[in-house]
Amino acid sequence: MIETANDNKPLKVGLLGCGVVGTEVVRILTEQADHLAARVGARLEIAGIAVRRPGRARDIAVDPALITTDAQALVSRGDLDLVIEVIGGLEPARSLILTALEHGASVVTANKALLAEDGPTLFAAAEKYERDLYFEAAVAGAIPILRPLRESLAGDDVIRVMGIVNGTTNYILDKMDTTGAGFDEALEEAQALGYAEADPTADIEGFDAAAKAALLASLAFHTRVSIADVHREGITEVSATDIASAREMGCVVKSLAICELDETTDSVSARVYPAMIPLTHPLASVRDAYNAVFVESKAAGRLMFYGRGAGGAPTASAVLGDLVSAARNRLKGVPGVGESSYTQRSVRPMGDAMTRYHVSLDVADKAGVLAAVAQAFAEHDVSIQTVRQEGRGSDAELVVVTHTATDAALAATVDALRDMDIVREVSSVMRVEGE
Amino acid sequence: MIETANDNKPLKVGLLGCGVVGTEVVRILTEQADHLAARVGARLEIAGIAVRRPGRARDIAVDPALITTDAQALVSRGDLDLVIEVIGGLEPARSLILTALEHGASVVTANKALLAEDGPTLFAAAEKYERDLYFEAAVAGAIPILRPLRESLAGDDVIRVMGIVNGTTNYILDKMDTTGAGFDEALEEAQALGYAEADPTADIEGFDAAAKAALLASLAFHTRVSIADVHREGITEVSATDIASAREMGCVVKSLAICELDETTDSVSARVYPAMIPLTHPLASVRDAYNAVFVESKAAGRLMFYGRGAGGAPTASAVLGDLVSAARNRLKGVPGVGESSYTQRSVRPMGDAMTRYHVSLDVADKAGVLAAVAQAFAEHDVSIQTVRQEGRGSDAELVVVTHTATDAALAATVDALRDMDIVREVSSVMRVEGE
Repeated sequence: MIETANDNKPLKVGLLGCGVVGTEVVRILTEQADHLAARVGARLEIAGIAVRRPGRARDIAVDPALITTDAQALVSRGDLDLVIEVIGGLEPARSLILTALEHGASVVTANKALLAEDGPTLFAAAEKYERDLYFEAAVAGAIPILRPLRESLAGDDVIRVMGIVNGTTNYILDKMDTTGAGFDEALEEAQALGYAEADPTADIEGFDAAAKAALLASLAFHTRVSIADVHREGITEVSATDIASAREMGCVVKSLAICELDETTDSVSARVYPAMIPLTHPLASVRDAYNAVFVESKAAGRLMFYGRGAGGAPTASAVLGDLVSAARNRLKGVPGVGESSYTQRSVRPMGDAMTRYHVSLDVADKAGVLAAVAQAFAEHDVSIQTVRQEGRGSDAELVVVTHTATDAALAATVDALRDMDIVREVSSVMRVEGE
Repeated sequence: MIETANDNKPLKVGLLGCGVVGTEVVRILTEQADHLAARVGARLEIAGIAVRRPGRARDIAVDPALITTDAQALVSRGDLDLVIEVIGGLEPARSLILTALEHGASVVTANKALLAEDGPTLFAAAEKYERDLYFEAAVAGAIPILRPLRESLAGDDVIRVMGIVNGTTNYILDKMDTTGAGFDEALEEAQALGYAEADPTADIEGFDAAAKAALLASLAFHTRVSIADVHREGITEVSATDIASAREMGCVVKSLAICELDETTDSVSARVYPAMIPLTHPLASVRDAYNAVFVESKAAGRLMFYGRGAGGAPTASAVLGDLVSAARNRLKGVPGVGESSYTQRSVRPMGDAMTRYHVSLDVADKAGVLAAVAQAFAEHDVSIQTVRQEGRGSDAELVVVTHTATDAALAATVDALRDMDIVREVSSVMRVEGE
C-alpha cells in the first residue's frame, strides 16, 4: 500500500542518452513511479529523452513524443528540475551539464571521465546556480561509496582508499588466477562475454580506474585531484608467471586504485597499478567483475564496500539514488552537500609513494650472486624482507620481496639490477600492497 | 592548509553521556575542530556534557565547567543546535531526546534499543519540530549502512538484508569454528578480551541484533518494524557439533539478522538466529568481532558493507558523520531526509518465513529407517535436498538438509520426527541461509 498524500507538482526529468543505463533508468522511473513519488514527495515525470539515433529499437516503451535528437534544446528548456547525463565522454556532455545547471536543473551523471578531467568547473557551476551535481554512479557502479565518503565519514579522517574499481580488469586477472590463462586469452574471453569492449584500452590501460581514483581521492581527502595527477599502469604486462609467483607467496594479483594521505607532508598520493595483495586481505576475495572499495580511516578503522561496478541495472540503481536525493532537495529548495576541497593538498609524485616490490631475477649460477644482489638493494636503502632461490644450475632464479621503501628507490634498485652482469634478466617486477 | 572563510556562528553541541563513545566524540570534536569547521561551515562548540558521575576520571581534558549531572536542564537550555545521546537504554534517553527536539536541537543517537522500541514517537517529534534525528551508530557501528539504505538505494527496491550485526556473537562463533571450543569456553574468552559484557544476555540471546534488525527492516522496506516484530533466537544452544556439521557441508555458523520483503503478499519478515551459510557467501569470511551487512536489491544486485560494529572510536566515527550532516542541515535551515514508512507493510509471522533446515537425527539401526524419515518430511510437504548417513550399527546418524519450505512446515516436521520410535534423538536442528 502506498501513501502518496502530497500536493507537490511533478518534478520534470530530462534524460541525456538512452543506452544500456538510460534504458534501465527509464524502466525504473516508469515501473516504480508510485514508490519513487512516495519517497520523494512528488512524482518524477520524464519530460524529454535526448538520443543520437531516435529510430533505434529499445527494450522499453517510451512515448515517441518525448524523444529528441536536440539535447541542447532539451537542457535549455528551462522547465526541467532534474537532468540525468548518461552519454559519457567529455563533449557534448560537459556543455550539456553546464547548460542544464544554468537553466536551473540539478544534474545526476555517471561520467567519471568528465568529472576527473574537469570536475572543478562543473562543481563551481553547481554551486553558482545552487543546484546539485551528483555522480555516485561514476565510481564502482551500484556500490554506495561516494555518499559514505562525503557524508557518513565526514566526521572522520580517511587515511587510505584502496579499490578494485574496474570490473573488466578484475575479471581478466581473476580468470588468469583461476584458470592459468595468459592475458590475451583472458581478455578474449572477457570480450566474448561482454565484460570488455572491442577496444579495451580504457580498462586494461587503467584510464577508467585512474579517473575513479581521482574522484575517490578528491572526496576522501577534501582536495582536488584530477586524472592527470594519477599515476597509471595497466595490466597488459601481467603474465601468467606473475600470477603464479603471487600464489606462491600467498597473494593474488589485483588492479588497485590507491589513494593515500601522507600526514607528515599533508599531501596525497593517487595511483593505479596491478599489485599483489595477500589472500587474507578483504579485497583478495573480490572475484569476477565485482568491485570493492576498502577504506581506512582514523576512527572507523577498516571498512569495505562491495558490489557490482558496472552494468545497466546496477548503474541505474546509483543514478536513481542520486535522482531521489536531488529531487528531495529541489522540493526543499536547497541543494545538498557540495564538493569540499578546503584542504588544497598537493599530490605527491609516484616516486615518493611508499610501497613494496616483488622482484624475480634470472641469475648466473655463480658463488656470491646473492651477496651481490643484496648489496644492490642495500645501496638504495631498500631493505629485503625475503629472498627465495628457485631452480639450480643455469636456471637459477632469485625472488626478492622488499620491505616498504619509496617507489623511486625501488625503481632505481631494479634499474641497477638490470645493469648487473650476474643478472641475466629481471623477469618480473610487481608491487605488493595491502598489509 | 585549512580554509575556513565562514562567518557563521558556532553551532552548540550538547553531549549526553561521556563513557567510551562519548569520550571519543569529545576527543575528535576537540582535536579535529578545524577540519570539522571547514566541512560544516561553522565551528562545532561543546556547550555541555551531562554525566552521571562527574568525578570519574576520563581520558580527555574537558573544561570542568561544561560537566553537569542535570541532563534535563542541559537539553532544555534552548540554545543547543545539536544534541548527541550516548547514554543508552530507554529512559531517561527517550525523554531527553524528545526534550532536545522540542527545544530546537537536532539529535544524533546510537541508541538502537530505544529506536527499535519506540522509534515512531521519536521520528514524529523530529518531523514536528523540523529537526534531524540521525542514528547511523545504532546499527553496525562504524559501517555506513543506514544512510546508504535511506539515500543511496532510495531509487532501488531492496528485497533482502542479511547482516552480522553483533560483534560479540560473531567473535564467539568464530572462536568455536577456528578452535573447536564449546560455547561456554568461547564466551569466557570473549569476556576476558572485553568483547562480551559481564552480563552477556543482550548479545548472546539476540536482543541487540533484534533491535538492529527492526531498524534495518524499517529503513529497507519503508515501513515500521519494532523489536517486538522480530523473531529472535540466541546462540546459547549452538554446540561444537553444530559447528562441525556446518564445516562438513561447506558452511559456517553465523548469527544472522535477516530482513526480507515478500512481494507476493507485500509483507516483510525480520528475524535473528544462528544459521549455517556456505563458505562461498561473502558473509562467511566476516571474522572476529567484525560486522557486515549484505543487501540484495532489484537493480543494484548484491552489495556488502563491512567494518567494525562496536568500540569507542568506530561508533564515534558514525556519530560524528551524523553530527556533521545534522550541522550542515542546521546551517541550511532545513532538516535532511526523515524516516519513510509510507508502505505500512505487515510483518509476517516466523512460521511463514521461507528457509531451509539442517537436521541431525540419532536413529535406530533398522531396515526402513531412511524411508520412514523421508516419509515424515514428505507428509509436511518438505522436500529433501540431501541425506547423509554417518556411523553404523547402534551409532547410526542421519543428516538431512531440506529444500526451502515454510518455517512452520519445517518445525512441524522436526516435531513429528521427535515422536517417531525409530528416532532416538533429534540431535541438532539449524537453519541454512544464504544461497
